[in-house]
Amino acid sequence: MIKALVFDAYGTLYDVYSVKTACEKLFPKKGESISILWRKKQLEYFFQRQLMGRYRPFDELTEDALVFACKAEGVKPSQKEIKGLMDAYLDLELFEEVEAVLAECKGVQRVIFSNGSPNMIHPLVSGSRIEPHIDKVISADGIKQYKPAAPAYAYALDQLGVTRDEVLFMSSNSWDIMGAASFGFHTAWINRARSQPDNLDIQPEKAYTDLKGILEWL
Amino acid sequence: MIKALVFDAYGTLYDVYSVKTACEKLFPKKGESISILWRKKQLEYFFQRQLMGRYRPFDELTEDALVFACKAEGVKPSQKEIKGLMDAYLDLELFEEVEAVLAECKGVQRVIFSNGSPNMIHPLVSGSRIEPHIDKVISADGIKQYKPAAPAYAYALDQLGVTRDEVLFMSSNSWDIMGAASFGFHTAWINRARSQPDNLDIQPEKAYTDLKGILEWL
Repeated sequence: MIKALVFDAYGTLYDVYSVKTACEKLFPKKGESISILWRKKQLEYFFQRQLMGRYRPFDELTEDALVFACKAEGVKPSQKEIKGLMDAYLDLELFEEVEAVLAECKGVQRVIFSNGSPNMIHPLVSGSRIEPHIDKVISADGIKQYKPAAPAYAYALDQLGVTRDEVLFMSSNSWDIMGAASFGFHTAWINRARSQPDNLDIQPEKAYTDLKGILEWL
Repeated sequence: MIKALVFDAYGTLYDVYSVKTACEKLFPKKGESISILWRKKQLEYFFQRQLMGRYRPFDELTEDALVFACKAEGVKPSQKEIKGLMDAYLDLELFEEVEAVLAECKGVQRVIFSNGSPNMIHPLVSGSRIEPHIDKVISADGIKQYKPAAPAYAYALDQLGVTRDEVLFMSSNSWDIMGAASFGFHTAWINRARSQPDNLDIQPEKAYTDLKGILEWL
């Protein structure tokens, strides 16, 4: 029986590419390319840092990735402009169906578990409409190990007071849902991009194109 | 003083995109896109597997990546055709300057250290012109941990009979040269693609656009 719904944040509940607007405003015609490269490098950097055992808080490596992306796109933001772009991460747009689905999920813990550092993920959630529907927000910074490494999921589980088998984990990110499946959570891949499933020897139990599908678990 | 030159294989000595020809022959007009996606997924799969602690030999995950890439590109190779494409990895082209540079590196151990499984990397080296100039070939399969995780570099070092400080490590792959630098090898990034350096808190000691630059270390 599912007692805790654990949601990834970036890309799953919140659209990380909504930073595009802030990028576009500062750097006309380059907003999209900067925001895509920014996210790509952010992913690379926490993957590599986890692999090398060189932890760095998510806000700092996200800024590292932004600086890389701006340089690659030939723009030179000031420190104040970089701060402005980083602040866009505190005000990401929710995907359309998220609020209604979370409001329907009653009688279970509703938890966000993110690689985002506390100073990114807490303001994001507390400033958004879903805040009343979220019981707990957990950052991987608490153990300083990033998803999809098993110790990160174990750390989140420790905060929940339930068994591994009582958790349904949701993420739109293939690497995240695979990591959660490998760890032993029940898993539902929110495949918003309708991507081809990765060819690994584990798979999520269910796949939906948005969050509405998870209601069948309750 | 440098006593061992340790070279990455794929992308550093050998051009992984030379599999494009074999792909193109089987799937006209799709050779380039398949070979690019094949490499991209190969990288993703060993990164993710190392992160999740789900080791799988490099030949098997390389085939997993190929199967993914073919499906994504809408082609359906037979088992025999898949084997033919995998065989292309045993006969990759050397980059132009490699043989001459290796021949000039005298009085030091010349070592290849690759994530490739023994059944991929040994036939590749023994069938290529540089074989007489290579003293040792080491596969990360010996410890079943992939670069850029520190235990992989430690395993290679153990085979060399020298200290960490006596090794010059070379790779064209940014994630690999960063991992080696983080481990404590001397490092020379063979930046063939003239890529912008990654914005991490470690950097290779030197960067060259091909292997000729390393001769200044001897």
